[in-house]
Amino acid sequence: MSALTVTGIRITPVAFADPPLLNAVGVHEPYALRAVVEVRTDSGITGLGETYADEVHLGKLRRAAAALAGHDVFALNTAFTAVTVALAGDTGGDAHGLTGLITESGTVERVFSPFEVAFLDIQGQALGRPVADLLGGAVRDRVPFSAYLFYKWAHHPADPDGDRAAGEPDEWGEALDPAGIVAQARAMVDRYGFTAIKLKGGVFPPDQEIEAIRALRDEFPTLPLRLDPNAAWTPATSVRVARALEGTLEYLEDPTPGIDGMAEVAREAPMPLATNMCVVDFPHLAPAVAAGAVGVVLSDHHYWGGLHRSRLLAGICGTFGMGLSMHSNSHLGISLAAMVHLAAATPNLSYACDTHWPWKTEDLIVPGALEFRDGSVAVPTTPGLGVTLDEDALARLHEQYLGCGIRQRDDTAYMRRLRPEYERRSPRW
Amino acid sequence: MSALTVTGIRITPVAFADPPLLNAVGVHEPYALRAVVEVRTDSGITGLGETYADEVHLGKLRRAAAALAGHDVFALNTAFTAVTVALAGDTGGDAHGLTGLITESGTVERVFSPFEVAFLDIQGQALGRPVADLLGGAVRDRVPFSAYLFYKWAHHPADPDGDRAAGEPDEWGEALDPAGIVAQARAMVDRYGFTAIKLKGGVFPPDQEIEAIRALRDEFPTLPLRLDPNAAWTPATSVRVARALEGTLEYLEDPTPGIDGMAEVAREAPMPLATNMCVVDFPHLAPAVAAGAVGVVLSDHHYWGGLHRSRLLAGICGTFGMGLSMHSNSHLGISLAAMVHLAAATPNLSYACDTHWPWKTEDLIVPGALEFRDGSVAVPTTPGLGVTLDEDALARLHEQYLGCGIRQRDDTAYMRRLRPEYERRSPRW
Ligand SMILES: [Mg+2]
Ligand SMILES: [Mg+2]
Repeated sequence: MSALTVTGIRITPVAFADPPLLNAVGVHEPYALRAVVEVRTDSGITGLGETYADEVHLGKLRRAAAALAGHDVFALNTAFTAVTVALAGDTGGDAHGLTGLITESGTVERVFSPFEVAFLDIQGQALGRPVADLLGGAVRDRVPFSAYLFYKWAHHPADPDGDRAAGEPDEWGEALDPAGIVAQARAMVDRYGFTAIKLKGGVFPPDQEIEAIRALRDEFPTLPLRLDPNAAWTPATSVRVARALEGTLEYLEDPTPGIDGMAEVAREAPMPLATNMCVVDFPHLAPAVAAGAVGVVLSDHHYWGGLHRSRLLAGICGTFGMGLSMHSNSHLGISLAAMVHLAAATPNLSYACDTHWPWKTEDLIVPGALEFRDGSVAVPTTPGLGVTLDEDALARLHEQYLGCGIRQRDDTAYMRRLRPEYERRSPRW
Repeated sequence: MSALTVTGIRITPVAFADPPLLNAVGVHEPYALRAVVEVRTDSGITGLGETYADEVHLGKLRRAAAALAGHDVFALNTAFTAVTVALAGDTGGDAHGLTGLITESGTVERVFSPFEVAFLDIQGQALGRPVADLLGGAVRDRVPFSAYLFYKWAHHPADPDGDRAAGEPDEWGEALDPAGIVAQARAMVDRYGFTAIKLKGGVFPPDQEIEAIRALRDEFPTLPLRLDPNAAWTPATSVRVARALEGTLEYLEDPTPGIDGMAEVAREAPMPLATNMCVVDFPHLAPAVAAGAVGVVLSDHHYWGGLHRSRLLAGICGTFGMGLSMHSNSHLGISLAAMVHLAAATPNLSYACDTHWPWKTEDLIVPGALEFRDGSVAVPTTPGLGVTLDEDALARLHEQYLGCGIRQRDDTAYMRRLRPEYERRSPRW
């Protein structure tokens, strides 16, 4: 193999329909945004990456892409430096409510990530090897995921300003109480075979969410359960909920904001605390370890700097006695492929990964490469990521992006447009 | 690329002449031992690794080699597991005096290492890429090394039992006082252009070694200096020496034994403490970080599980605010090549690496691939490690191994044969 040099990078923002899923800061808008990164090389091989598409982030992606023109796809260390330099003085501004404070280094990690994934896709294709083989090789043939339950409305309401009529009800229906959550879980488990269940909480007062977890335990006596209120609770409330759910949760995710608050809860909680909010970048690890704040880190290659740096995170978790799980935002098939390769090649990823996959009805990869069966996805064994872009679907979802009017994810603003009395607060209870 | 499967592994112990270099536990024997690992694949490509050759270690290498037969050279994760399983119940026993206590996991790391290096050599050759490209790519064209000064005798003495006559004086001469050390440093810097200097201490009372460092400072006003007494001092002595050398050492290496002792010294020492003795395996990192024991970790792929796991160590050092340098034992060209690729691809390796290279007069790689110039070695850009085994030299050094009678490094026993009154003590002063 000779040079594998970047000859061009195309960044395409897309929008895909998203149900009205409720969380601690509002509700999912009618469309979720993603950016597709296509890296072309002089060899004719194109690699794929997928990331956020908020407008500020898109600007940074474009600046990074310009800096990576002419780069060798094996030169990941210098590519990271090139992105760091390209973004100097232009970090921040890309936070959204559910992943904590974005540090300066965190901005570089999340901008670098889709390019790194695309570079690895190219390396794998050039070598005739799946991406997992570039990460030390798969240790499992299939990657288990958890069912990701949400409180939700039956459909998107009509916009009060008259811009948009009410949406059609989706196939999952309303879920606003324990019975609705159990019905949703039953449908999801029956359909995909999930062997672990996560409930997105922080929506209703804690006692109602405790009740929902207990109802899930009754319905699924053996499945591991998780609850994630996205820092909606004070430390005192968190400890109360943790004790109420002793023996019921495999971990409690981000009950309260911040490393100090989490450490306070961790000292009293009978189960491990997990996070994708107070530890979201390498500089957070040392203080979190020192405080004993976290039992499980939810990795996410989209903001941990790509697949190689996510393996570093995994190694750090293993070395410092923390468990490792995997976080998900609303995503499409390129991201799922990257998540599956990473999870397959990470020996100490011992929990089922999160995914929003069942909630979407649209995608932009050629179908068939990634299927959920028995709650897991088979690791592609074809070269690279093992997924192919469907150009027509990409064009359609890009048109949808152009037309949908959303340029930045803002679950709170959408909720406030529908429910003007809604206030964002963390902690809320 | 299709399969790259291991069809055979040859492990050849070799011995090469070594000068009488003094250290805190004795003196180098007339021959240093190494094991050469040659991994053959069905593709016809052979990869090289190099490691220790103490008899106990050789037995473990052979057991690991048997477990790796038929393995895919990209499947590093499962290869590590295979070696772990192969060694279950058979760890320990492979310590030597200068690298601290060997944990069970540490045994696996050091047995796995040469196979991982050989697998990466094969991957690189198959891809047409240097090994550095498999580690994220080189961030520097040349890797700087430090001059490694030793107190030493002019030649190996005659063996008191009459088995061996006195050795010939080597080209470096005696160095038993500050003037001898300065002369050695001058010769080594003039010959190789080193831009940093390390003195192996722990041989004479601390005040004499302070004097040697001050003499080096006078002779080389601008070169970074290091002193490594291999835990020969109590914490109190260590603090006294550290204060005496304030402003003179870039780091003080392993002044005293153990994480707690190092932490005690670190609280008072004006310069960072470095170690390759109290942090030599992943389980040591959490307690060392918690205690604030170490400012700089000396990595060494031979006992940190190979090149990928050494990059994990590097990432941990970066994440937890520790510096990173590189340790050396007496080694040959295969190890130097691996060290150079690793160092080139490790952005936060900010110190000149250690090497024993100038002390040896024999090697088993085809000359020319690795040359010291201006104190550094150019990173090979040819596929794989970029070094080729010289079969004749390998056979010669293996014959030397068979004839030399040494089967386990033991600097103390050799010293005691020559100086029966010698006692091993740590700390000594
Ligand atoms: Mg979460
Ligand atoms: Mg040392």
